[in-house]
Order: sequence, then C-alpha cells, then structure tokens
Amino acid sequence: MTTAAAESVQTTIVPSYVLDAWWTPETGAAGKPAEVRDASTGELLAAVSTEGLDLAAVVRHGRSVGQAGLGALTIHERALKLKELAQFLNGHRDEIYELSYKTGATKLDSMVDVDGGIGVLFTFGSKGRRELPNSHVIVDGPMETLSRDGSFVGEHIYSRIPGVAVQINAFNFPVWGMLEKFAPAFVAGVPTIVKPATPTGYVTEAVVRLMIESGILPAGSLQLISGSARTLLDELDYRDMVSFTGSASTANLLKSHPNVVHGGVRFTSETDSLNAAILGPDAEPGTPEFDAFVRSVVTEMTVKAGQKCTAIRRTIVPKELVEPIVAAIGERVTQKVVLGDPRAEGVTMGALASVGQLEDVRDAVESLVAAGAQIAWGSLDAPEVVTADGGRKIVPDGAFMGPVVLTWNDVRAAALHGTEAFGPVSSVVGYESIEEAIELAALGSGSLVATVCTNDPKTAQTLTLGIASHHGRVLVLNREDARTSTGHGSPVPHLVHGGPGRAGGGEELGGIRSVKHHMQRTAIQGSPNMLTAVTGVWHKGAERHLADPADPATHPFRKSLSELRIGDAVRSELRQVTLEDISHFAEETGDTFYAHTNQKAAAANPFFPGIVAHGYLLVSWAAGLFVSPEPGPVLANYGLENLRFLTPIPAGDSIRVTLTAKQITPRVTDEYGEVCWDAVIENQDDEIVATYDVLTLVAKEWPA
Amino acid sequence: MTTAAAESVQTTIVPSYVLDAWWTPETGAAGKPAEVRDASTGELLAAVSTEGLDLAAVVRHGRSVGQAGLGALTIHERALKLKELAQFLNGHRDEIYELSYKTGATKLDSMVDVDGGIGVLFTFGSKGRRELPNSHVIVDGPMETLSRDGSFVGEHIYSRIPGVAVQINAFNFPVWGMLEKFAPAFVAGVPTIVKPATPTGYVTEAVVRLMIESGILPAGSLQLISGSARTLLDELDYRDMVSFTGSASTANLLKSHPNVVHGGVRFTSETDSLNAAILGPDAEPGTPEFDAFVRSVVTEMTVKAGQKCTAIRRTIVPKELVEPIVAAIGERVTQKVVLGDPRAEGVTMGALASVGQLEDVRDAVESLVAAGAQIAWGSLDAPEVVTADGGRKIVPDGAFMGPVVLTWNDVRAAALHGTEAFGPVSSVVGYESIEEAIELAALGSGSLVATVCTNDPKTAQTLTLGIASHHGRVLVLNREDARTSTGHGSPVPHLVHGGPGRAGGGEELGGIRSVKHHMQRTAIQGSPNMLTAVTGVWHKGAERHLADPADPATHPFRKSLSELRIGDAVRSELRQVTLEDISHFAEETGDTFYAHTNQKAAAANPFFPGIVAHGYLLVSWAAGLFVSPEPGPVLANYGLENLRFLTPIPAGDSIRVTLTAKQITPRVTDEYGEVCWDAVIENQDDEIVATYDVLTLVAKEWPA
Repeated sequence: MTTAAAESVQTTIVPSYVLDAWWTPETGAAGKPAEVRDASTGELLAAVSTEGLDLAAVVRHGRSVGQAGLGALTIHERALKLKELAQFLNGHRDEIYELSYKTGATKLDSMVDVDGGIGVLFTFGSKGRRELPNSHVIVDGPMETLSRDGSFVGEHIYSRIPGVAVQINAFNFPVWGMLEKFAPAFVAGVPTIVKPATPTGYVTEAVVRLMIESGILPAGSLQLISGSARTLLDELDYRDMVSFTGSASTANLLKSHPNVVHGGVRFTSETDSLNAAILGPDAEPGTPEFDAFVRSVVTEMTVKAGQKCTAIRRTIVPKELVEPIVAAIGERVTQKVVLGDPRAEGVTMGALASVGQLEDVRDAVESLVAAGAQIAWGSLDAPEVVTADGGRKIVPDGAFMGPVVLTWNDVRAAALHGTEAFGPVSSVVGYESIEEAIELAALGSGSLVATVCTNDPKTAQTLTLGIASHHGRVLVLNREDARTSTGHGSPVPHLVHGGPGRAGGGEELGGIRSVKHHMQRTAIQGSPNMLTAVTGVWHKGAERHLADPADPATHPFRKSLSELRIGDAVRSELRQVTLEDISHFAEETGDTFYAHTNQKAAAANPFFPGIVAHGYLLVSWAAGLFVSPEPGPVLANYGLENLRFLTPIPAGDSIRVTLTAKQITPRVTDEYGEVCWDAVIENQDDEIVATYDVLTLVAKEWPA
Repeated sequence: MTTAAAESVQTTIVPSYVLDAWWTPETGAAGKPAEVRDASTGELLAAVSTEGLDLAAVVRHGRSVGQAGLGALTIHERALKLKELAQFLNGHRDEIYELSYKTGATKLDSMVDVDGGIGVLFTFGSKGRRELPNSHVIVDGPMETLSRDGSFVGEHIYSRIPGVAVQINAFNFPVWGMLEKFAPAFVAGVPTIVKPATPTGYVTEAVVRLMIESGILPAGSLQLISGSARTLLDELDYRDMVSFTGSASTANLLKSHPNVVHGGVRFTSETDSLNAAILGPDAEPGTPEFDAFVRSVVTEMTVKAGQKCTAIRRTIVPKELVEPIVAAIGERVTQKVVLGDPRAEGVTMGALASVGQLEDVRDAVESLVAAGAQIAWGSLDAPEVVTADGGRKIVPDGAFMGPVVLTWNDVRAAALHGTEAFGPVSSVVGYESIEEAIELAALGSGSLVATVCTNDPKTAQTLTLGIASHHGRVLVLNREDARTSTGHGSPVPHLVHGGPGRAGGGEELGGIRSVKHHMQRTAIQGSPNMLTAVTGVWHKGAERHLADPADPATHPFRKSLSELRIGDAVRSELRQVTLEDISHFAEETGDTFYAHTNQKAAAANPFFPGIVAHGYLLVSWAAGLFVSPEPGPVLANYGLENLRFLTPIPAGDSIRVTLTAKQITPRVTDEYGEVCWDAVIENQDDEIVATYDVLTLVAKEWPA
C-alpha cells in the first residue's frame, strides 16, 4: 500500500468498542492496517487495525465492570433485555442490509445473517424466561439423598463462570455469528468480547454500534475488537472461555496456546467440516424426496456462495443415481441461479467474500482434481455476472465463482473426505449399500451436519443412528418436511450447532444448553436446610413454616408473592376414604378400572391389596384439603409435575396432605409469577402415599 | 538392577489383558521393567513392562469387538451386568484387601477404595436402569417445534461414541479409580482400555482378573494395560476419549498431543488441586461446627496418608482462629492417629505409596517452607511407626510420614495456593472477612472440592455461591450433616467429580451425566414420523394407530408389551361437563376454590371466563374415558408427568381424550415394564384443554 492510500484509509479504520468507549488507533499509529474491499466490485471500503490496543485492560474491564453489571440482573432480566434488543435491531434492519450487500451477500443471504441473528436474540429472550428460574443460579437435576436419614443430600447448580467470553467469529455471518454467541453468554451473565473476521467486521461494528446506542446493555457486557487480537489469549485464564468459529488450522493454533493447555481456559470451536447429504435408496428420480434433495444441494452450494461451514460438500447417493443427480443439480442451477452483484435485481447468488477467498477456493478445487476428482458440472473460469447496474460482464476485481460439481472414481479418496473448497463446490459420490453410505459419511471424520433424505422410516433410522455419533446435527428430509424444513445449512437456536472431530469438537446453541456452556456445574452437598439456603429452592427435608390452623391468614395460599417465602407450608387434617367414596368416584368419573371396582381382580394384581382409591381421587381430595373458597392471591393451578403414587389407599385408610412453597419465580413483565409447591400425601401411619409438584400462578400483591 | 534381579522379576511381571487374553512380554523381552515395592516394608513385589505390546491392535480390538459386544446389549442390560459384577466382587473383597495392604492402605483406606469402587458399580447398575431408557439411544430434552404447522421438529439424542474409552488412573485408588471410570463407559456402551499407575497397578490387575473370571463382561469391553502406554494416544482419533486422573503436568502433556489438539480425541482430566476448607465466622471453638471442621481436616490429612486429589490443602479460618485450629488439629492427631504398617492392629494411618512419593512430598514441604511457610505442627523427620508384628521403630525402607501443619504470614503467597504436597500436609491461613475468604479460596485457580463449614444459612449461601464457579463440588458442613456426611474428600457416584482450572477442567461421575460424557449429543430434525422412527419414542404430530371403537380388543390397554406398539392409541367420545358436575365435584372433593364455586370471583380472575371445571375433574374424567373394568395387561397407573391445563372448561363444554403409547420400557428383571402414554384432552372445538403423560406398568404377556 502506498503512503497516500494508507493515509486515506487511516480515516476509515473500523473502530473497536472497549472499556465502554469507541476506540481507534491514534493518528499515524495504525501500523499497517488490513484493507477491506467490496466483494462484488473490489472497491476499498475500510481498514482495520488494533495497533496499541491494551488487550489486558479489555479483559480486566469485562471481568470487573462487565461481571458486575450483568451480575446485578437476574436471568429473566437479562433475557428480557435480549428481547428488547431484538426489537430494537428489527427496526434497523434496512441499514444493516445495505452494508451487508458489500460483503457479496444477496438479500436472502442477509436475511439469514441479519434476521437469523435477531431471531437468536428473540429465542434466548423467550427461552431464558420460560425455561430458567428468575435468579442467578440454575439447579441441575434432582436432589440426591446421600445418607439414610436424609440429613445429607446433594444437588448440582450452575453458576456463571467468573471471567469473560471471548468470541472469535468467521467472516461469513458477521451478524448471526456474533449474536448466536453473544445471546447465551448474556443470559448466563458472562461479559462478551467479540472479535469478528476482518473481511466483514465492518458489518459487525455497525450492529454493535446499534446495540450500544440502544442503551439496553449494561456497562462492560459487550466489547468489540475490530482487528487483530493475536495476544488476547495471553490475557485469559481458567475463569474465561473462548468460542471460536473458523478454520481448523486457526482453531488448532488457539487450542495449543499454553493458557488453554495449562491454564484451563475453556475452549470450544466450530470449524468447517465436509458435511454429507445422503439420498436413500427409496428416493428415486420422480419421488418428492429426490426433488427435495436436489433443491437442498443447490441451495447449499449457492446461499452465501457456498461459504458456509454447514454446506453440503459430499453428496452421497446410490451409485446408479450419480449421473441423474449431477444432471438434476446442473439443470436446477441453470434454471434458478443468477450470479452477480447482490444490489442488482434478480441476483440469487453473490460473490465470495473477497478475492483472496476466491483464490483459496480455486486452489482447493484444483487440488481435488489433482487427487482424482472430475469437474462434472460448472467450471473454474471467471464467470460473466450481473453488475449493480443490471449489465452482464466479467468483473476482474469481483470475487465471483459459479457452482461446481465434482465426481470421483475412488469414493474413498482422502481428498474427497478431507479437502474442503469453501465455496459453491460439492462432490457427488455413489454408494452400493446403506452400510457403505454410513461408512462414507463417517470418512469426514466428524461433521457439523448431515442430511438423510428418505421416506422410509427404517432407512431413516438406520442411516441416522449409523452416522449420529459422527455428527452434531442430522436432518431427515422427506416429503413431510421438505417445504417447512429450515434447511440443511441453517443452525437453529433451539438445537445444538457443532460437531465432533473435524467439526471442532464443540457445541453452541441448543437453547438453554448453550447458556450452561457459560456456567460452571458444581455439586453442592449439605443438609436440606443448607441446600435450601444456597439455592433459594426449598428442599425435601428442610424446615417448613407451617400455617397455624387456627389462623387462616397464615395459610400460604393467602400470601401474595410479596409475602410468600420458600418453606411456607400448610398441613391438612386427615380425611378417611370409604369404599363408598371409591365406588362413587368410579361412577362419577367413569374410571371403573378393576383396581377400584373388583375386589378379586384387584387383589390378584401384584401391586394392590384389594380395591384401592383412585390416584386421581387422592389428588383431587388433596386439593380439597388445602384450598378454601375465598378469592385470594393464588390465581390458578396451571399444572402438575412428577406425580408418583407410592402407597395404595384401601377403604378405611385416611390421607392428609402437606403443601410447601418450593420455588418462587416472579415474572419480570407480569403482575404475577409462578409458584411451585411440594405436595406430599401421607396416610394415617405417616407413610408417603403420593408426591408431586403443584404449579400455580400467584399475584405479586394482594389485594391486587 | 543386576541381571539376576531382572531375571527374578521377569517371572512376576504384572500381566496385561488385551484382545481378550492375558499378556506379558515374551521371556527376555521385557526390557527394563519398572519395580513395584511394598509401601510399608520396601519388599520387591512385582514389575511392570509392556515391551512389545501392540497398542494399535488393542485400540482396534476395542473399536471392533468391544463396540460390537456392548452394542448387542441395551442400556438396561449393561446396567444389570454392572450390578451382577458388583455382587461378584463383593464376594471377593477380602482377597483384594490383602493386596491393598501392600500399597500402604489401612483397612479403612481399602474400604474407600474397594467398597467405594463396588459401590460405584451398584449405583450405575441401579441408575442406568432407573433413569435411562432400555434402548441404545437417550433422548435429551423436549421436542422443539421448528415450523408453524408442526411438520418440522427437532430434538436431541445421545448415542455412544464410536471408539474406545482410554482411562488413565492415579496410584492412590487402584480399584475405585478404575471402576468409577469403567462403570459409566460400560453403561454408555463404550469399551474401556484401562491404564493403571505403576506403583499400585497389581491391585487393579487382580480386580480385572476377577472381573474377567466372572464371565459377566462381553468380549472386548475391558482391556488392561499394565505398564507404560506412552504411544497409546498415537492410535486414537476423534472417535475415542481419554479420561485422565493424575498430575497436572502429565495431563498437560497428554492434552498437547497432536491427536487431541488436531485429531479431536475427547480429553477430560481430573488433577490434584489445592482444595480449601473454610470455617465460617460463626463456627467458634465450642460449636459443633468447629469440632466437625477439625475432624474433617484431620481425616483428609490422614486417610490414604493425605494422598488424595481431594484432600484439604488449604484450611481457611477466621484470622483469630488460626492458632486454636492448629492446636485442635494437633490434639486430635495426637489422640487418634496411629501411624504404621496397615497389617498391624490399631494402625489408622498407613504409608505413602512409595519411597519416591515420600521424597516428593518432603521436597514440596521444603519448598513451601522456603516460600514462607512455618511448620506449626509435626515434622519431616522419619517417624517411629507400628510395624506388622506390632513393634515400634523407624523403618528406613517404608514410605512413612506424619501429619504436618503449615502456617503463613503472607496469606496470598503464590506457593501456598499453587504448590501441592501430595501427602499428610495442610496449610492453615487466616481471613479477615467473608470476601477475603472467598478470594483466598479462588486463589487456588480452580479446585475439585471445598468445604464450607458454618451453621449460618446466609454465610453458607454467600460462601458457597462466592466460590462455586471455581469448584467442582462444595460441601456445606454443619451440625445437621456432620455425622452423616460422606466427607470432604470422597467423591460420590451421584455427584460430579472434577473441577475447573488447576483441577483439570474435567467432569466425571455425577450419575447419568457421566454416561453421557461417553456419548455424542446430536440434534435430529425431521417430521414427527421420522423422529419417531429414529428414536423409537412416539412424537406429538406423528401417526397414531387408533383403536376401533367397535372392537374392544384393539384398545391399547388390552395389549401386553409383546403386542403394544409405539403410536397405538385410543380416542374417546365427547363428554359434556355441567355446572352440576362441577358443583358436585367441589362438594365431594372439598375443592371449593373460587374458580369452581363463585361465578363473580371466577370471572374477575385474569384466566377464567367464569366458573370452570376443576383441572382434576378433567383428568379424572379423562381416565374414565379410556379405562374399562375388565382385568387386563395394564397393571397400574403409577404416576403422571408434565400436566398443563391450557384451556379452561366452563359448564356446557365437552371434553374428549386421546391416549397414545409414547415410550415402552420393558424391565430386564420383571414380568412387566413401564409404558408412558401421551394424553391430550380436547374440547368440542378441538382446542387443547390439557396435555400430560400417563405412567403405567404393563405386563409383558397377557394372560400373564
């Protein structure tokens, strides 16, 4: 770069956002900034440099200010902020699209990136409040009794890691790539330091700018490093985590860093893999599956110009269908794909992200050909494309490449299963048996995703279970979901994204699973009282604050959320069950199961002494024993969990119920919240008859 | 070693068990075998050598024969084998104890190791059958709906990894250390290759011999490498996993192996850490907590002669209690600890595992002293000990060392929080505030376990949550659990064992969690029918095989497990609910909640249109709509899960129920099994009123 060019670039350096302020290198101190160019035209857009940035201070800021700001919020409050952020960004999509076109992305590509990213925020905003407690700690799994008398018990909790989440992203999805990592970290309460890839980092910067301008985020919860951060790992330790998306070689470099190997930095990576799509033997030409399969392969070759870590690199089909599939792919590309500047009308496939990327992909295809591949469709020649003004020409500075289909004589060639061309390139290979199809898919040595396309349930099961342990995701494609599927290449926030081996060995997304990736699981042992104190959830065996039967105001159902405390409880009187009650209940409900109506048959049953009361009679009566008719703060019983009938109740026995406030979850956006009650039905001998959790909605204040 | 000695050792080389056969190096080909000596006497016991062992063949055997043998069994069948194995080993404990004494372990130490290990087998034998499906795949979490019309859904499954589990164990627990890793791998269906530590590997060998002789294990499911396996990692790839217990330096070496960094070998490690025990400010001398704390510190210093990765290395107490705690520890040691040959009567503390270990511990204590520690109790002098014949003397070849307590002027000294003496050594340090106690505990940079000793719930919560993210386990000790606690140093199979940072960053045990560590989690997407086919569990939206109302024999409740199929279903007629029904139910059950009895109050409630039917009325009636009085294969309704009331039913509305066989779990040891039924109650307009799962026990054959 000439000095003049360097100076002009100096004014357009993409800023970083650190220590809650925007930052660029001091004038003249940017060193040699990396250039960023428009993918379709080659126009110089900006430059990046982090020369002089104090990375240690960035990490310290996250660990101190970021942890404090997020720690002041509950999980639900954080989740609600994600929803607000999603709504805010939704109102600014057009400006992000405008920038996104410069990366070579078509409108559809940008929707995947921008709308997809906003969708992740919505999903975590919703799941965080629906599936997690409104606290700082997540209880994991049931309590385990560790002593005979129940005085020593154990349980697991998740609490956020005490450091920062460093998120290193790939160039292909500058928005989604950031938000899919940021959202779960934020819900967990862990501050993010995001490091986008240079070629498209200016799009990330624009979105971070909007996020900051929204005023929604607490201080220190999001920092952005626009440019190189080579020494960032030097600043991290076991309190921190790194989530990397990108090439396997960079992932391996980072994974070998002493702070990862010796220092205990949590490291997860998601790297490109040679994902497979397998066509079942039943999915012959003419079937809906055959058509859906071809559509999917072409989509994965052309969306983002095939620059997706999830794209289909290996199209595995019955041997006799190799030629028909290649032909069908070619036909569909010819009919549907218009290559060009995404700002032009009608363009359905844009450029690769940069000329550098284009060269890498061409090199990879050439090495595949050298290893035995034939180019069965398409070519490496520079294509004529639609330009922004609607004309057609070859653009020498544009990073354009048309779809290329390869075929192979040797279906086990190492290059076929190991060399990736990160662009619109896929190999079609034939198999002779289902077992061979499974074997070929596994030769990818671990992939992010595979499609199994079949309408035969048995084939679906054999193929899916045969390849599952080599994959992070398997999509079963058939006529039932061909139109509604979100597609082979699209991770969804509800399901895990990542895969073993070549795919990086990591796991992202998967709903609340990914929130937990930002937390430490810790076993807690102690008495039920102490576990109650630590978790804020009442544990069986802990003290109860029993209502005074003589004072109805002490009944926990008379307390609003502002008054109710964990452990508040009510214990009923005994009520006797007669044979007449049982017969009557059977008659009224129609539940004439023989254990309730036929003494001889009931006695012959291995579990009953003779006729016993219906389980539902017991649960219904129990409700009768703890409710009263006056209106009050308990608004509804919306469900029940974990009901187990443990001791049968023959006529003559009596039951009583003890109800204890177990978990209280005030909603951040409503005037009520959920209360989960521990319910225990006992008989006259204090034997446990049934246990369950009663789920209620309770007003925050009463009178409301 | 002289040639003569080498020859004599040649005859006692500890064999390996590989490729389903016992193996030792060919005569004269053992190279330089490592010597193994009695810890108390220095007597030469055996030698180990793997010279000439084909490790690649061992791995291949596990991946092929081992995977096939375990794959032929369901999860329940595997779990049952663990129970049988536990029963078998229980009958051979005495012979294992005899060997165990030679390692320096006392009877109590051996019980921790041997009985503890057998206990792990029992726990996994039980949990595997109680908490997991009787199949090959574990469904993880609920189905996620991914399209509006429900035709595209997603879910997660766990399937076993397709390779081997290499388990590298430490010398301190030759039996438990093997079994705690073997049991979860076995339930998951992953073949084990166990590599014990040289000093005590002969005990492991003896137990493996018993396990093989039991005839319970399938071929290839367990292999033993007695001796060096330096190149074993060269043979592994992303299909395999390594679980390492031992020193941080060895863990880091293994973690840096190219097959881990580049090849995707799953790696988990559990390394020694400088675990803390914190005494709360309330736990003054004279409280039960003070006494329990001192007991715990002394136990952790003397059990296994302090050679536990979980031992208390840092005893963190209020500053003014440093001296009283040191004195109390000294007093208890003087009163209770008898050091000597574990074969002698009355000995409560044995030798370190070897003279080499003794030297390491002495060196560590000397370096701690050089870094500022004072020896406040005990000494490094060779102690007089009780010998096997009951005499007392100094045994120069025995690896004996008495307890040593250190104190520090600088409570933040790096050595205090970073240098481990892996023996009967603990530092006592003072804190001035709860915040400082938390900070000091965290200076360990990640630990396996900490004890928090307090009887104040608020202190328990502050300390526990303050340190949780730095720990794998926290034990809250107070007067309630002091007598029943399993102890600071004892991992239990129900709870996770491992910790962040210095503790290795791994996770073992934790019940079914550790089974899943041996499995790949894979997201499966597809239509409900396809997810049903893949998982063997019926999914909402999948086809049902509806019973013919005209033919009672087609009702799924008339089918035994041998006839019942997933998706078998029955759909009832509509039944209308009248106001009288509601009033009557309220009266009979006593459930007079205002939503069922008071029109005005019910209408004022945000969720109800006016008086509505009780949820329990609906569930009770639903049962009446699908049961019939004749005895049949359905033996009992033992519970109910996931009940949600979604649409209220006012008088005049009608309900119907559809019941569908969702999951079938035949028990391996009973004549019946569990059937989980999907239940949906709808109203006359096909709106969903309630959803839940009905849990039943169903006979395998009927008539029985």
